Amino acid sequence: AIIHQAAEVFDYDLLTGKHVVITAGPTREPIDPVRYLTNKSSGKMGFALAAAAAEAGARVTLIAGPVALPTPNRVQRIDVVRAEDMHQASLDAVEKGCDIFIATAAVADYRPTVTADHKIKKSTEEIHLTLVKNPDIIAAVASHEHRPFTVGFAAETQDVIQYAQGKLKNKNLDMIATNDVSGSDVGFNSDNNALTVIWPGGHKVLPLASKAQIAKQLVELIAIRQS
Amino acid sequence: AIIHQAAEVFDYDLLTGKHVVITAGPTREPIDPVRYLTNKSSGKMGFALAAAAAEAGARVTLIAGPVALPTPNRVQRIDVVRAEDMHQASLDAVEKGCDIFIATAAVADYRPTVTADHKIKKSTEEIHLTLVKNPDIIAAVASHEHRPFTVGFAAETQDVIQYAQGKLKNKNLDMIATNDVSGSDVGFNSDNNALTVIWPGGHKVLPLASKAQIAKQLVELIAIRQS
Repeated sequence: AIIHQAAEVFDYDLLTGKHVVITAGPTREPIDPVRYLTNKSSGKMGFALAAAAAEAGARVTLIAGPVALPTPNRVQRIDVVRAEDMHQASLDAVEKGCDIFIATAAVADYRPTVTADHKIKKSTEEIHLTLVKNPDIIAAVASHEHRPFTVGFAAETQDVIQYAQGKLKNKNLDMIATNDVSGSDVGFNSDNNALTVIWPGGHKVLPLASKAQIAKQLVELIAIRQS
Repeated sequence: AIIHQAAEVFDYDLLTGKHVVITAGPTREPIDPVRYLTNKSSGKMGFALAAAAAEAGARVTLIAGPVALPTPNRVQRIDVVRAEDMHQASLDAVEKGCDIFIATAAVADYRPTVTADHKIKKSTEEIHLTLVKNPDIIAAVASHEHRPFTVGFAAETQDVIQYAQGKLKNKNLDMIATNDVSGSDVGFNSDNNALTVIWPGGHKVLPLASKAQIAKQLVELIAIRQS
């Protein structure tokens, strides 16, 4: 009933005139032409936020890793594969002017130092793969001279709130949304989610609901905090 | 026109009484609860073969890695994640009695030596990942005491035919189907495919067609060679 009310009072003019940039999905870090490192992100939360932001009147740019999801109505989608591509697309969008940046993508933190031109053969007993850090997209956005209101996500399996508070401060974010992905009923690839949203000096719990409903509630929170 | 004819003369009794086991899709080799190594296999060729074998009257067991595909009619599906799970499910199926084994899965050749219980933090500049060989499923099946007619696939980006002939001999296969995945119009995730099918003493080219059509032609070839 509460969720239903939240949907009914959704303000379709909350973000009119704003440009919202959202990253979504996983990235793929290629080892060779067919193999890659990736993660379980489905992109559903980011796509739901893109839809909710567009419904709230924003101009929305959705920078999406490889996911099997249709583009929401009135959303401009930019498809990327690697973290470095997502980093470049994000900075390009911020350069062009962006009011709100929401980083839902589960960006691969590391990439192989080398990508083989041809499929690696099964010739040795062991492979030693050296992985190096990918660029920190949200930190780069939050420290940009034309810094937008910057919202991060933290998907952890332990010490969730504590980790999120650290990330909020260290990366100079305006808001961070956390969910515990160790359970199977929320987070990655689920159609539902439950979030704890933290900002400097406050927090709000968004209880278990569909990702579409959670997205609307988060868009409202962002609009209030950003204005 | 030729493809159309091939479909029209398809014999719906070719594999009656036979148990066909097919592996399909990629495997995922977990690094931690959210990250994994995988590859671009969509599972489409294996699922098309399962459908074609069932249409040809076979009892079909489909051992599938994580893919987003519906189970074909009259096919028993076993879902697996890691190569080791696929290996165990395949040997179980062969133990129980299997006439034809078709390995279309793009099994991860290597897995991380260690899977972390919790999501690895972005704490160090470099990660050194040691990968060890996964069990060779098709070689285990082809050397089993109740050895079925064993069909392999070779998806390579260079020296395709030469590599396939080596694999046919080294792994003691009855047949191998090869496609060159370096082009974008065939192979991984495409709805079309073109194969060169090789067996000891012969070969046949199956020109570009839908995976459903290619699957029917391959099932016919297997039925002829196996009988």
